[in-house]
Amino acid sequence: MHLTLPSVDTLANEALAAQLARDLDDKTKPRGSLGRIEALAAQIGLIQGCTRPLLESPQLVVFAADHGIAAQGVSAYPAEVTRQMVGNFLAGGAAVSVLARQHGLGLTVVDCGVAHDFAPQPGLVLAKVPRCEHGTADSSQGPAMSVAEAKEAMANGCRLVRDLPGNALLLGEMGIANTSAAALLMARLTGLALSQCVGRGTGLDNAGLAHKQAVLQAALAANASAVQPLDVLATLGGLEIATMAGAVLQAAAERRVVVVDGFITTAAVAVAHALAPPVLQRCVFAHASAECGHARWLQKLGVQPLLDLGLRLGEGSGAALAWPLLVSACKLLGDMASFSSAGVSREEPSASA
Amino acid sequence: MHLTLPSVDTLANEALAAQLARDLDDKTKPRGSLGRIEALAAQIGLIQGCTRPLLESPQLVVFAADHGIAAQGVSAYPAEVTRQMVGNFLAGGAAVSVLARQHGLGLTVVDCGVAHDFAPQPGLVLAKVPRCEHGTADSSQGPAMSVAEAKEAMANGCRLVRDLPGNALLLGEMGIANTSAAALLMARLTGLALSQCVGRGTGLDNAGLAHKQAVLQAALAANASAVQPLDVLATLGGLEIATMAGAVLQAAAERRVVVVDGFITTAAVAVAHALAPPVLQRCVFAHASAECGHARWLQKLGVQPLLDLGLRLGEGSGAALAWPLLVSACKLLGDMASFSSAGVSREEPSASA
Repeated sequence: MHLTLPSVDTLANEALAAQLARDLDDKTKPRGSLGRIEALAAQIGLIQGCTRPLLESPQLVVFAADHGIAAQGVSAYPAEVTRQMVGNFLAGGAAVSVLARQHGLGLTVVDCGVAHDFAPQPGLVLAKVPRCEHGTADSSQGPAMSVAEAKEAMANGCRLVRDLPGNALLLGEMGIANTSAAALLMARLTGLALSQCVGRGTGLDNAGLAHKQAVLQAALAANASAVQPLDVLATLGGLEIATMAGAVLQAAAERRVVVVDGFITTAAVAVAHALAPPVLQRCVFAHASAECGHARWLQKLGVQPLLDLGLRLGEGSGAALAWPLLVSACKLLGDMASFSSAGVSREEPSASA
Repeated sequence: MHLTLPSVDTLANEALAAQLARDLDDKTKPRGSLGRIEALAAQIGLIQGCTRPLLESPQLVVFAADHGIAAQGVSAYPAEVTRQMVGNFLAGGAAVSVLARQHGLGLTVVDCGVAHDFAPQPGLVLAKVPRCEHGTADSSQGPAMSVAEAKEAMANGCRLVRDLPGNALLLGEMGIANTSAAALLMARLTGLALSQCVGRGTGLDNAGLAHKQAVLQAALAANASAVQPLDVLATLGGLEIATMAGAVLQAAAERRVVVVDGFITTAAVAVAHALAPPVLQRCVFAHASAECGHARWLQKLGVQPLLDLGLRLGEGSGAALAWPLLVSACKLLGDMASFSSAGVSREEPSASA
């Protein structure tokens, strides 16, 4: 199929950036004293192209799929957990379900290629790719997907976001063995040694971790020729990651705020970023995961996460936990009094007078 | 006056701690994958003495007072800003006002000794101490308060909390020069060198910082004999810190959750902790402030903050920003499905099988 990727422009707007900085400095607080929250407010202002950004109808989307490489025993959990957790999301019992209710986030689960045929139901979007209905092939034996299949998954992600309300997309995912796919993408896209990219996922012991490393080394060898972003995504990635990468590109093109969760969602963003670098300007990185490669990958991307709470659940749980900070940033920018309006004295000319 | 400090019992309850750990492990997530949020849920459960803790009617209290030492030019802002900011809190234009509205926190401002005579008004509690109506004396010249005055401020804090609804107290403060008082308390209570305790406050330049250090060194010398916690509080502290220390003791005795903001609120908690060590079990440390001594003090107390966002505003703004994480912890503990209720498979016996 033919895929025209959404085009993502740069947000460079010096006049607006300067106005946002002036507005923040004029609030009744010592200059810069709200730290990273001020940078966050300015970023959201630049994304929305205005000095009084507002977040509306935030949507958390959980992209779910299965992975052929799970057959190699790279996860602590059996593959049927992907399907079972989709049921749990829809029934409202998963961590992300609870957090979405707390914060008023729309919650959509997308079947990007789960090894199960779901009946249509509210909250579930069916977006399987033909020939990958039940997941990817085992990348330790050859390509996980063809490039055409990866592109079709990306197109599904673009379409999905076009149909979503609101101006913020929170990324979530579910897929047993998807830390393996993400580690493979990290190794190939960053050039870092595989050992720096592979972690314990949902809870492997030492022997399990060694086995996972060996399997992933085989996957890199079996797909040694893939170096272009789309080839890397297709051969080493997953259907939820490809669908998410398309969703990120579409959201960025529409100037939605993209809230990135942990290791796997960072993989999708890294692919989108490789295809269209200004994507990163729209991304807020919610947290540094306990999964070993994540903090290193964020550093490689030159971005700083908001939270560092030892989370390693995925699902979008970290994105949901960080969400109120984005709301706070906008409200502080919009609703705080200025020095003049509140009649508060400014800093003295010489602080040591 | 005679002050009977509230008595604070230890929360040691091994059976409940074990039940909370089992409940968390039975949730549909890999064991421990919610990281610090799980520890937070268990802590709140232990504070409330139950497996399904609920946070009700959270109250953010901003303790405000002026400091005699401000006359020595230790702050970047003039002393009248304390009074002006009290007006800003009450008018709803300060950062903490905006955040309290966002999160549904009750907001109370307490005049513990501001150099102004406020008319009674909604949201303001008048709790001045006789002979310190307009602030403390200059601690660089002698004691800031007498022990009797500090005790009276503490008693005001106890009374205030007894009259507040809900089961959570979020600490905030306002007082030009109060990073000086907090740094003095830190130096004397921890034994660390003054240089490790003094920071730029609201934004001193290098000359201002050097001047502040010299003034604080004089204050330590002028009150060299104070070593007992109440003597240290009286001679080097502030009226908002003393009132807050009383409030913390009362809240801890009533098993309220105490959410600690930045450097100055940590000073109040450190005094309360010195008087009644189990106080710390009730405290959730919201963030590591950019004020230089704060992270070091938290380390000395053996506690870990939730956020690290470069905040240095005070007012309770960091406590308010962290608040949704406490709510999430309780909701996850209360509302997530268990493996059995959701029909989700558990971890496989051997992860490397």
